[in-house]
Amino acid sequence: MCYNYNGDGMTILDIIDKKRLKGELTRDEIEFAINGYLNNSIKDYQMSSLLMAIVLNGMTDRETVDLTDIMIKSGDIIDLSNVDGIIVDKHSTGGVGDKVTLVFAPLLASLGIKIAKMSGKGLGHTGGTIDKLESIEGFNTKLSKEDFVNQVNNINIALVSQSENLVPADKKIYSLRDVTGTVESLPLIASSVMSKKIASGADIIIIDVTVGTGALIKNLDDARELSRLIVKIGKSYRKPTICIITNMDEPLGYAIGNALEVKEAIETLKGNGPSDLLEIVITLCSIILGAVKKISNEEAKNILFKQLNNGEAYKKFEEFVKAQGGDLKKLKVSGKFFSIKSDRNGYINKINAQKLGEIAKQIGAGRSELNDSIDYDVGLVLSKKVGDYVEKEEELLKVYLKNKDVSINDLLECYEIDDELKPMPKLIFDVIK
Amino acid sequence: MCYNYNGDGMTILDIIDKKRLKGELTRDEIEFAINGYLNNSIKDYQMSSLLMAIVLNGMTDRETVDLTDIMIKSGDIIDLSNVDGIIVDKHSTGGVGDKVTLVFAPLLASLGIKIAKMSGKGLGHTGGTIDKLESIEGFNTKLSKEDFVNQVNNINIALVSQSENLVPADKKIYSLRDVTGTVESLPLIASSVMSKKIASGADIIIIDVTVGTGALIKNLDDARELSRLIVKIGKSYRKPTICIITNMDEPLGYAIGNALEVKEAIETLKGNGPSDLLEIVITLCSIILGAVKKISNEEAKNILFKQLNNGEAYKKFEEFVKAQGGDLKKLKVSGKFFSIKSDRNGYINKINAQKLGEIAKQIGAGRSELNDSIDYDVGLVLSKKVGDYVEKEEELLKVYLKNKDVSINDLLECYEIDDELKPMPKLIFDVIK
Repeated sequence: MCYNYNGDGMTILDIIDKKRLKGELTRDEIEFAINGYLNNSIKDYQMSSLLMAIVLNGMTDRETVDLTDIMIKSGDIIDLSNVDGIIVDKHSTGGVGDKVTLVFAPLLASLGIKIAKMSGKGLGHTGGTIDKLESIEGFNTKLSKEDFVNQVNNINIALVSQSENLVPADKKIYSLRDVTGTVESLPLIASSVMSKKIASGADIIIIDVTVGTGALIKNLDDARELSRLIVKIGKSYRKPTICIITNMDEPLGYAIGNALEVKEAIETLKGNGPSDLLEIVITLCSIILGAVKKISNEEAKNILFKQLNNGEAYKKFEEFVKAQGGDLKKLKVSGKFFSIKSDRNGYINKINAQKLGEIAKQIGAGRSELNDSIDYDVGLVLSKKVGDYVEKEEELLKVYLKNKDVSINDLLECYEIDDELKPMPKLIFDVIK
Repeated sequence: MCYNYNGDGMTILDIIDKKRLKGELTRDEIEFAINGYLNNSIKDYQMSSLLMAIVLNGMTDRETVDLTDIMIKSGDIIDLSNVDGIIVDKHSTGGVGDKVTLVFAPLLASLGIKIAKMSGKGLGHTGGTIDKLESIEGFNTKLSKEDFVNQVNNINIALVSQSENLVPADKKIYSLRDVTGTVESLPLIASSVMSKKIASGADIIIIDVTVGTGALIKNLDDARELSRLIVKIGKSYRKPTICIITNMDEPLGYAIGNALEVKEAIETLKGNGPSDLLEIVITLCSIILGAVKKISNEEAKNILFKQLNNGEAYKKFEEFVKAQGGDLKKLKVSGKFFSIKSDRNGYINKINAQKLGEIAKQIGAGRSELNDSIDYDVGLVLSKKVGDYVEKEEELLKVYLKNKDVSINDLLECYEIDDELKPMPKLIFDVIK
C-alpha cells in the first residue's frame, strides 16, 4: 500500500499503525500527520482513525508538547510586544452559567493588569464569552490587530474573537473531533487549549479546569491530569501557567443565557454577586494579583473585594464595553418568561448543569453547530441553588423564551430534591501550577 | 450535539462513545451504523473512528455474529438450491504464491463434489484467484447467475468474480479499512470473510487461515482466535465450517505471479507438485472428501493421490477452463527473465514471503489499488526453498519482467542464509472445526 508518501517514505498508514500499537510518535510523524491533514493530502477518515487511536492509546508528554507546538505554528502567532506591562490570558474548559471572564477581566484591568484575550464562540451545552459580549447591542468583537493592542495599552483590557488564522490546525481538527466521538482525550484537549493560548501571546496563562456533570471532564483525576499537562506545556514556553480545578456539577451563579449572564456579571462587578461565582473570580484574580504585585494572597483578596465594592471594577467594565462600541442601556432579556414551581418540599441536592445547558441551547441560547445563530435574550435563571430548601409550589427557576418551546418535565428532571440535605461538594478542588 | 438521529434518537456519536468505553453494541446499534454508512447518512470519518475503536476495544462473539448477519443482508444472497449435491466453498485469508484453489477445486470436482466459488481480485502483496484465472487467455470470470448454476450442475465446478452486489457493506467498509489502518481486527476480518462466504450460498465452507510474515495474521494465537470466530459464525448459519491454519512465512510452492502460478498448479494437478503445496491441498481436500463420503482420512488421501496421478484431476481442470472460455495453449509467461544468484554458501533459513510479494506486486504481478491493471505474465520463480543448501553463484530464483524494474539487493534481502540449518517450522499448525 502506498498512500501519502513524502520524500522520506513516511505514510499516514505507518503512523496510524504505530499509534494503534501504542507506539510513541516522533515529532516528524506528528508534523507529517497535522500538516498533511491541513493541506488535504491526508483525509478526514484517516485523521479520525488516528485521533481515535490517540484517544484510546494516549500520548506521552513529549508527543503532547510537540503536537501543541506544531499546531501553534500552523497559523498566526499574535505579537503583543507593543503592550506595556504584564499581559494575562484566561480560559475555561467550559461550563454552564460560566460568566467568570466577564468579571475577572475588568476586575484585574481596574488594578492595572493587562488583559488581552481572544475567545471562541460557544458550542454545545456550554456558552462562550464572545456570545455573551455580543448580547450587548453594538459590541464589536472583531478589532484589528492594531486597535486590539492600542486598547489594551489605553484601558488595560480587550476581549475579541479569535483571529481567523489562529491555530487553523486546531480549528480543523476540533471540528472533526466534534463529529467523530474523539473529543475525550486529555492530551488532545490540553494541546487544543494551550495552542490557542500560546499563539495569543500573553505572558501569564490561567486556566479554569471545570469538572463535573456540566463539564467536558467528568472526574477529578482526569482534571488533575489535564491540569498537569497544561502546566507542562506552558512551562515548555517559559510562560507561567496556573490551573484551578473547579466544580461544575450545578450551573455557576444563577443565570444561564447570554444577556442574562451579562446582567449577573454586572451585579457581581458591583459587589452583589452570587457566592460561588464570587469565590471563583476572587480565587483566580488573587493568584494573578499576588504573583504580579508580589503580595500575599490575603492582601490580594482584600484589594479585590474593595475594588468590587467601591465601583472601580464596574467602572472599568463600562469603559471596556464603551471602547468596543457596546451600549449597556440597551442590554435586554426576553419579556416572555415563565416561573417553574417545585412539585414537592425538600432540600435541593442536585441541579444537573449539563441538562440545563442542553435545555438553554434548545431554547436558543446556544448552538449545536458553529454556524447556527442564537437568541441572546433567552435563557434560565435559577431561584434556588444546591443546598437550598424549597417548598412545594415555590419557584425553582424562571425560563425566558422567544420562539422555541421547552418541556416543564425536562426542567424538573434536572433537579434532585430529597427530605435530607446531602453533604455539599467542594467548589474549588485544587490549584496546580 | 445531534447528528444522524433516527426516530429512536440513536446517534452515531453515542455508538462510537459506547465502543470507545468498551461497551457491547446491540444489534440495532450495529445495524444503525452499517446501514447509515451504506446510505451515506454516516460519514467516512465517523465510520473510521468507530472502526478504530473496534480494532482497539474488540467485539464480543455476539457482536461479531450480528455484524456478519447485517453485512450479509446488505446485498444479494446467492441461491444455489438448484444445484444438486453438496456444494463446497473455499477461501484463503491470503498468501504469497497461494494457488491452492486452482488445485483444490478441480481435484474435488473430479470426485463429484460441487465447487461453486466467488472470488475477489488480489490486493497488496497477496494474489487473487480471479487474477490467476484471467491470465489464461479467453477465460471469462463473469458468468450470469444461470450459467454459474448450470456449469456447477454440469461439470461440478465454476469459479467466478464476486457478483457486484455481494455484501456491498463489506466492499465499502473494507475499502475504508484499507486506507485508515483499521484492517487488523479479528472480529472485522472474520465478519468480512464469512459474510461473503455465507452470502455465496455453499453448504460447506473451508477456510485456509494463513499465518506468518506473508499473511495478514502474524501469530498463531491470533490465527486460532480468528479460526474460532469463523467456525462460530458458520455454526450460527448451521453451515459446517472448517479452518485449517497454515504457515505463510515463505511463499507457497515455487511460483509467484499469475500465469506462473497457473503453470505450477497444472504441474500439481498432474501429480508433479511441490511438497508444501501438495500437503496443504491434500489436507484440505481430504477433510472435505472424508466428511462428504463418510470415509477415513487415510482412505480419502489415497483416493486424492490416485486422482492426481491418473490424470483425472487435470482433465477436470481442462474441462473447467474450456467451459469458461479459456485457452490453456495460449498461457504465456514473459520471455524476459533473469537469474538471481546467491552471494554466499549456506542453508536457506528464511525466505520473506511478504517482501517477495511486494516485489512481485512492484514488477506488475499485483496491484496497490483495486482499479490498478496488472501484468499476468510477470513474476518470480524460486529455485530453492527454506531448508535447501545453496552454493555461492548458484541460482536462488528467476525473475520474469516486462516493463518494470527490480532491485537485485531487494531480492537478496528476502533471504536469510546461514552456515547452520535452523529447525524447520511446521507447515500445518492446526485444524479447527
